Amino acid sequence: MEPQRRPGGRSARVREAVLDATAAELAEHGYLDLNMEAVAQRAGVHKTTVYRRWRGPAGLVADALERAVEQPWPIPDTGTLRGDLRALTALLHSGFDDPESAPLATAFVIAGMHDPQAATALREFYQARHRDAAVIIDRAIARGELEPTVNRTEIIRTAVAPVFHRLFITHEPVTTEDLRRAADAATALAHLSLEV
Amino acid sequence: MEPQRRPGGRSARVREAVLDATAAELAEHGYLDLNMEAVAQRAGVHKTTVYRRWRGPAGLVADALERAVEQPWPIPDTGTLRGDLRALTALLHSGFDDPESAPLATAFVIAGMHDPQAATALREFYQARHRDAAVIIDRAIARGELEPTVNRTEIIRTAVAPVFHRLFITHEPVTTEDLRRAADAATALAHLSLEV
Repeated sequence: MEPQRRPGGRSARVREAVLDATAAELAEHGYLDLNMEAVAQRAGVHKTTVYRRWRGPAGLVADALERAVEQPWPIPDTGTLRGDLRALTALLHSGFDDPESAPLATAFVIAGMHDPQAATALREFYQARHRDAAVIIDRAIARGELEPTVNRTEIIRTAVAPVFHRLFITHEPVTTEDLRRAADAATALAHLSLEV
Repeated sequence: MEPQRRPGGRSARVREAVLDATAAELAEHGYLDLNMEAVAQRAGVHKTTVYRRWRGPAGLVADALERAVEQPWPIPDTGTLRGDLRALTALLHSGFDDPESAPLATAFVIAGMHDPQAATALREFYQARHRDAAVIIDRAIARGELEPTVNRTEIIRTAVAPVFHRLFITHEPVTTEDLRRAADAATALAHLSLEV
């Protein structure tokens, strides 16, 4: 057992400080200008500590995403599948639209395009998010709204993919109507599996 | 009238050479390492010509996308909506998967994340692509397969967005089954508008 690795120990406190600093630097400067020494300075730790443990910017991003997976997020629970999926697309969009959260959220997506380690971390992050969000589908199944055989992840993807498509591929504006349409399309497809 | 601006004139030939060189340099080095002088050298024109007319890398990318809009592409025509949308998602994916085309296609997407002028050019490029692809929907309407009131662009988006989502956001693999599922979901949604 390594005492410095126990939760709440010095190593855990260093990690928290460095990942907080990483998030702040990513939000301010973006992934491509993420500077290891600026992260160390902001975290109040020696730069060799940061280099030794995280290696480089992609290592910091990967660990920041791993920590983000562990943090709770407000999965919608409105009482209907349609309501939950509408709330989900609105929540997703606000993460990329709110001036507080958008710079960091966008920096993570950009990191995934430029580094394979960050891409792997993003894949694991989104897999976890989709698993979390699938409780929306589980509740709809429990209410008898959906068949238990529906493809839970693909219903979530149908709701969120058009939002990401507008934000990061086509650079089209995202309106409230767009968010609702994507959620309603996912709802309609989920319900279809009752009939086919 | 400016004689040097007429189609096929010297200006048009310079543009072709510079945009061919831009495409080659983008494919080799990516957007972030696109070098104006390397483009000029490869095109066999003076670098001041390139700087004066295109200003910077984003200007080159924007004009390359504008030229791409004018170039024909093989819109699927299989005889059914489902067949056309399946062929469309396969075509889209091959563009980002084929070693010949993927580097340039990916460089365009990345350019859009880093520069507003490139983002605007990408928006116009994809709007044109969606307009072109909507002939798939028009044919389905003409066959009586769909109501004339369907949202043509959103049907196309439902088919392609999950593919982009896997490629650029979640970095998940894209299987033939994934491409078919996205196309079939778009087909099912398009057909739904007959019933609702």
